[in-house]
Amino acid sequence: MKTKAAVAFGAGQPLKVMEVDLAEPQAGEVLVEIKATGICHTDAFTLSGDDPEGAFPAILGHEGAGIVRAVGEGVTSVTVGDHVIPLYTPECRECDFCLHPKTNLCQSIRETQGKGVMPDGTSRFSIDGKPLLHYMGCSTFANHTVLPEIAVAKIRKDAPFDKVCYIGCGVTTGVGAVAFDAKVEPGSNVVIFGLGGIGLNVIQGAKMVGADKIIGIDINPSKVELAKEYGMTDFINPKEVDDVVASIIDKTGGGADYSFECIGNVNTMRQALECCHKGWGESWIIGVAGAGQEISTRPFQLVTGRSWRGSAFGGARGRTDVPKIVDWYMEGKIRIDELITHTMPLEDINKAFDLMHEGKSIRSVVLFD
Amino acid sequence: MKTKAAVAFGAGQPLKVMEVDLAEPQAGEVLVEIKATGICHTDAFTLSGDDPEGAFPAILGHEGAGIVRAVGEGVTSVTVGDHVIPLYTPECRECDFCLHPKTNLCQSIRETQGKGVMPDGTSRFSIDGKPLLHYMGCSTFANHTVLPEIAVAKIRKDAPFDKVCYIGCGVTTGVGAVAFDAKVEPGSNVVIFGLGGIGLNVIQGAKMVGADKIIGIDINPSKVELAKEYGMTDFINPKEVDDVVASIIDKTGGGADYSFECIGNVNTMRQALECCHKGWGESWIIGVAGAGQEISTRPFQLVTGRSWRGSAFGGARGRTDVPKIVDWYMEGKIRIDELITHTMPLEDINKAFDLMHEGKSIRSVVLFD
Repeated sequence: MKTKAAVAFGAGQPLKVMEVDLAEPQAGEVLVEIKATGICHTDAFTLSGDDPEGAFPAILGHEGAGIVRAVGEGVTSVTVGDHVIPLYTPECRECDFCLHPKTNLCQSIRETQGKGVMPDGTSRFSIDGKPLLHYMGCSTFANHTVLPEIAVAKIRKDAPFDKVCYIGCGVTTGVGAVAFDAKVEPGSNVVIFGLGGIGLNVIQGAKMVGADKIIGIDINPSKVELAKEYGMTDFINPKEVDDVVASIIDKTGGGADYSFECIGNVNTMRQALECCHKGWGESWIIGVAGAGQEISTRPFQLVTGRSWRGSAFGGARGRTDVPKIVDWYMEGKIRIDELITHTMPLEDINKAFDLMHEGKSIRSVVLFD
Repeated sequence: MKTKAAVAFGAGQPLKVMEVDLAEPQAGEVLVEIKATGICHTDAFTLSGDDPEGAFPAILGHEGAGIVRAVGEGVTSVTVGDHVIPLYTPECRECDFCLHPKTNLCQSIRETQGKGVMPDGTSRFSIDGKPLLHYMGCSTFANHTVLPEIAVAKIRKDAPFDKVCYIGCGVTTGVGAVAFDAKVEPGSNVVIFGLGGIGLNVIQGAKMVGADKIIGIDINPSKVELAKEYGMTDFINPKEVDDVVASIIDKTGGGADYSFECIGNVNTMRQALECCHKGWGESWIIGVAGAGQEISTRPFQLVTGRSWRGSAFGGARGRTDVPKIVDWYMEGKIRIDELITHTMPLEDINKAFDLMHEGKSIRSVVLFD
């Protein structure tokens, strides 16, 4: 079939919106009509050429929502008409990782996904017979895409695509880090470094689970208002204090029970660890640091009871947990609407990247139809 | 009263065995006749002058066992005749740390203990009316010592002092890191960096809880025989492989479920983290690094599911867990006898430090009487 897509032909080039060819789903695969897709920093990172694994030409996008339009042979967990969210972290429920209680990092199709192809080693997208690569196993910058069955989460049909698409990455990454990875207990003091989209989702995750103090750290005070709406109780601007770690320890009476680094800066990663409470404070890295950069601390920080950990896709097992987060949104336990700052048709997708680079958006969403 | 003690008058000086004065236990304190005490690297570290918190003159020693000979006002948890192990990490069961489920680092008397005095701010030891400092709240290099009630673990009376004194530090630090901190599950693959006393105790802890592969790492092959007796299943000499991390990942089919650094070297701490399995591997630092040294890694190691943690006193809550470890020894679940390589009277205590520095001992124990 033909479908409309935004194609990345090379690093640093704008995406080109055009018709592409899409082969039908093979055994174990599903065809999904994408109804909405967010534009995430990771798409921009790959498009910039800085992603060492980035390859072109490809159809980017990994934060979508849509409807199953066809299923390949042997597909049993979803059927035509089901509403789904594509999963860049799949859940096969069979590999060593899925069967291990401590991780969500299903590895069953990791190798082919990293190469931009389907599990059989080929692509479903093409132009004039020349293959286009898939991206993060999703390629949601296309009106239709093909995904492995294990890489779609079936969600309720009353959830609005233009909002829950954000659960495909950002919301889950933040809320899940609190709920599934750190398992923050009610009454905990939580510190969040960086009040961008991920930070705001960590904040509302902390609020949802009943955290006590929810302390945001950012050098940009314009982010305070929305952060407070989402649950932040205290704000520290590192530019306004001598020592941000000391300020946090003071404000929490000893340090954070949990801290989350949502920036990707190795210096704030260290601060996030060292502001944790002696004996039990856990620091979770969510942000992605630049290639080759390293984190450091004195081992004494760990021996006296702090833990240094990391979270990817919020610790969510996609097929199991993403539908739960959709429910939380529909039940009003978490919010998304205010985070979708811009919507646009696919033709304007390059504007979404501009808005992101200019710091003017939290999340832009492309709407199909 | 008078008692015989080995006094450290200054950094780098041999201990001087002599009679000292010991005041009677005050409210909440107990007088303990020490029957045996181990000599640990931490004693040597302080005696060397490298310990920034070290102060003199003091009575060192923190790994003892003995009998309660008198109790001060209000003491209820032990009585005259009880057998006890002094605790450098006490357990008050009242402070925020004792009441937190994730830590054993009771802070109730931390400040005075760090200053070498009893909780009331004074010392019980003196010579000619001049006070001598306590050490780590224990001062077991004395035939009699005074301790806070919260800093003694009551143990069974049939346990031999000359063996279970080692539970006061080294055994608990190693076995406890496995059992209480990491909570290693049966079937886990465990990697131990450093096959000294702590490493051997980690090994037997891993064996006790049913670990599968127990892989020891050491540059000294002479340590292999005893390590195997204690439960090591595989040995890697870093001098004999190109890349110790790659060797471990290969041998474990993906990486360690748990690794323990028992050396105190920041380079092996990094290796111990990076040899852990993606998704769930936990690396626990037990060894103490030199002042000012730092650990480093790429944050990607954590974001892909490895955890970096630390263990002190094996995560043991002293009054609760030390008696359990004594039971494990008496029941044959763990061994100690082979680790006590030398015994001597107090008069020969300086020989114990010599043996340690020459690498000839695992644990030397001073026997009183």
